[in-house]
Amino acid sequence: MNEMQVKTDVNNYEIILKENYKDFCYTIKNLKKQYSKLVIISDEVVMDIYSKTIKEVFEDCNMRVVIITFFSGEKNKNIDTVAKIYEQMIDSKVDRKSLIIGLGGGVVGDIAGFVAATYMRGIDFVLAPTTLLSQVDSSIGGKTGFNFAGNKNIIGSFYQPQLVYTNVNSLNTLSKRHFFNGMAEVIKHGLILDRDYFYYLKKNQTKIKSMDYDTMKYVVKRSCELKGQIVALDEKESGIRKILNFGHTLGHAVESLLEYELLHGECVSVGIAFCAYISMEIGSLKISEYDDIINLLKMYNLPTKVCGLSSDEIYEHMFLDKKTTFGRISIICLDGIGKSFVKDDLSDEQIIGGIKKILSSS
Amino acid sequence: MNEMQVKTDVNNYEIILKENYKDFCYTIKNLKKQYSKLVIISDEVVMDIYSKTIKEVFEDCNMRVVIITFFSGEKNKNIDTVAKIYEQMIDSKVDRKSLIIGLGGGVVGDIAGFVAATYMRGIDFVLAPTTLLSQVDSSIGGKTGFNFAGNKNIIGSFYQPQLVYTNVNSLNTLSKRHFFNGMAEVIKHGLILDRDYFYYLKKNQTKIKSMDYDTMKYVVKRSCELKGQIVALDEKESGIRKILNFGHTLGHAVESLLEYELLHGECVSVGIAFCAYISMEIGSLKISEYDDIINLLKMYNLPTKVCGLSSDEIYEHMFLDKKTTFGRISIICLDGIGKSFVKDDLSDEQIIGGIKKILSSS
Repeated sequence: MNEMQVKTDVNNYEIILKENYKDFCYTIKNLKKQYSKLVIISDEVVMDIYSKTIKEVFEDCNMRVVIITFFSGEKNKNIDTVAKIYEQMIDSKVDRKSLIIGLGGGVVGDIAGFVAATYMRGIDFVLAPTTLLSQVDSSIGGKTGFNFAGNKNIIGSFYQPQLVYTNVNSLNTLSKRHFFNGMAEVIKHGLILDRDYFYYLKKNQTKIKSMDYDTMKYVVKRSCELKGQIVALDEKESGIRKILNFGHTLGHAVESLLEYELLHGECVSVGIAFCAYISMEIGSLKISEYDDIINLLKMYNLPTKVCGLSSDEIYEHMFLDKKTTFGRISIICLDGIGKSFVKDDLSDEQIIGGIKKILSSS
Repeated sequence: MNEMQVKTDVNNYEIILKENYKDFCYTIKNLKKQYSKLVIISDEVVMDIYSKTIKEVFEDCNMRVVIITFFSGEKNKNIDTVAKIYEQMIDSKVDRKSLIIGLGGGVVGDIAGFVAATYMRGIDFVLAPTTLLSQVDSSIGGKTGFNFAGNKNIIGSFYQPQLVYTNVNSLNTLSKRHFFNGMAEVIKHGLILDRDYFYYLKKNQTKIKSMDYDTMKYVVKRSCELKGQIVALDEKESGIRKILNFGHTLGHAVESLLEYELLHGECVSVGIAFCAYISMEIGSLKISEYDDIINLLKMYNLPTKVCGLSSDEIYEHMFLDKKTTFGRISIICLDGIGKSFVKDDLSDEQIIGGIKKILSSS
């Protein structure tokens, strides 16, 4: 099974796992919609790697292709980048029947999706995630958006793609750091939803670290399945989908405060350590399980502490989290490894205690 | 009947016609959702008129109220205004459970709706239209957005309000020019959907021009009904909703090219004259009906020609219209007064002939 379906209120779409981009054009034509143009949105790092491939893939496609790139990195996921892309689309006479293809990692997907959601009040888009983080997490579920005034993903929309085309072999182009970055979300999926998957990640660490194709295909597939099931239940995050934010309330605060010096997955890893500690403190996670979590994060070279920040500034920033309503911070906690729940009645002391645990003095 | 329901895929919502704002707070509470804050978005002209009223209305509401205003006018319906509102919302710690109220005309509604659609990936909003144009047209149907790089409404989204609260008496605060501005959309509704309504507007011009309350309540109600029916059939404008753009393809081009010196309804009026002429030329509108249309527009002080523009620049700009796909311009034509259809096989000569008809040498 190389295909999975994500079901949402608006549409159902396929996630297709492939070894290369050979079928990309055929797959788009198979969507059975007549598109006037293809608009490939990417960053300059990804385009450096794939420009030749893209040319070959779309040469026989018989469609006009517009390529728009922006500077890579979370720092550029902002309103200025969005505005520049709008400008280029208008200049290229992109119309309502055009199809946007977001080729790249999480930042590219978030930006391309937001542009698709808002250009001429919404045009179709397809995601082609190239990083582990985007393949296992950000390409599923229709969250689009950008950072604004130091707040991660505070502007955006829910907008579903027509298709996710995942070339698992693109993982080979990643640096070790970017590969491990994606593992934070993979570990999260095991922790909140699937105990066996969590221990699979422990047992198979050698194969995973060497990016063994079959193992990685299984990992991408399993994570997509787990996330897809939650999204289908609660597309707009009014209920159960909140558990996917496990590790993210603190993670986003750290990511914003450090001005995106740490990668998203690295910040989520610190956030996981925070949530696991809180879970242990309130008695819903065993000490041995807490140790298993910290050890697995470390095995994948992921940080469990940060330095250079104060507990006060982190605490203050957490109030800007999108789950914070009526002035109450919600934290996703574990009920043992593999189960999770939303907790919004933690005391200030409990939260600050958790923050202090993940602060490193060095 | 002072209430009408608009049915969309996402939600059904009421349009409520009132004589004042006394029930506004009660009506919001009656939505049966618990909101953390009210965020009133308006422009400085409207806020000058209503600040005292707003204070009185919401004083007993027992909710925190945040007021955000921007400079009025179509020229300010841009990405900078949107960004400034985001900033103020973040500063005021507006959360996901807050309710935005857009109090004002079409520009306020478009901006407030877009901000609601994109802040934290979407929060609830209510419209309180204060101009005739917004009461009869822009507040119905969930179109939100802003102008970008000289293109009218090119960025936006479909996002439905929870409620439209229309105080018909707010029309008394309008200048004659702004009142007639709204009449262009009213006349449009008659032309494309309801022959009797068109001739009602002719017969009752004295009462309408004097803003007789009962007459205006009927006009607002009838226009809301007509537009609401079309929106319910085709929320995302993939089919029949396109007819609501009657007069708008040329109208938007003129509006953008004149850098918003003419009001939206005035440009639509010129666009109506253009579409009526084309309809007559292709034989789907009688000469006498064409004359009736031009005369009614003039009766309501609306322009049927513009000066200072060339046919080439208008023609070129029309290609940026959102209905233009695969390089073909779509024009909404009349099949007699009261019926309309989409025509996308007009020759360049026919379109340019129509443009020349609405150009004034003086």
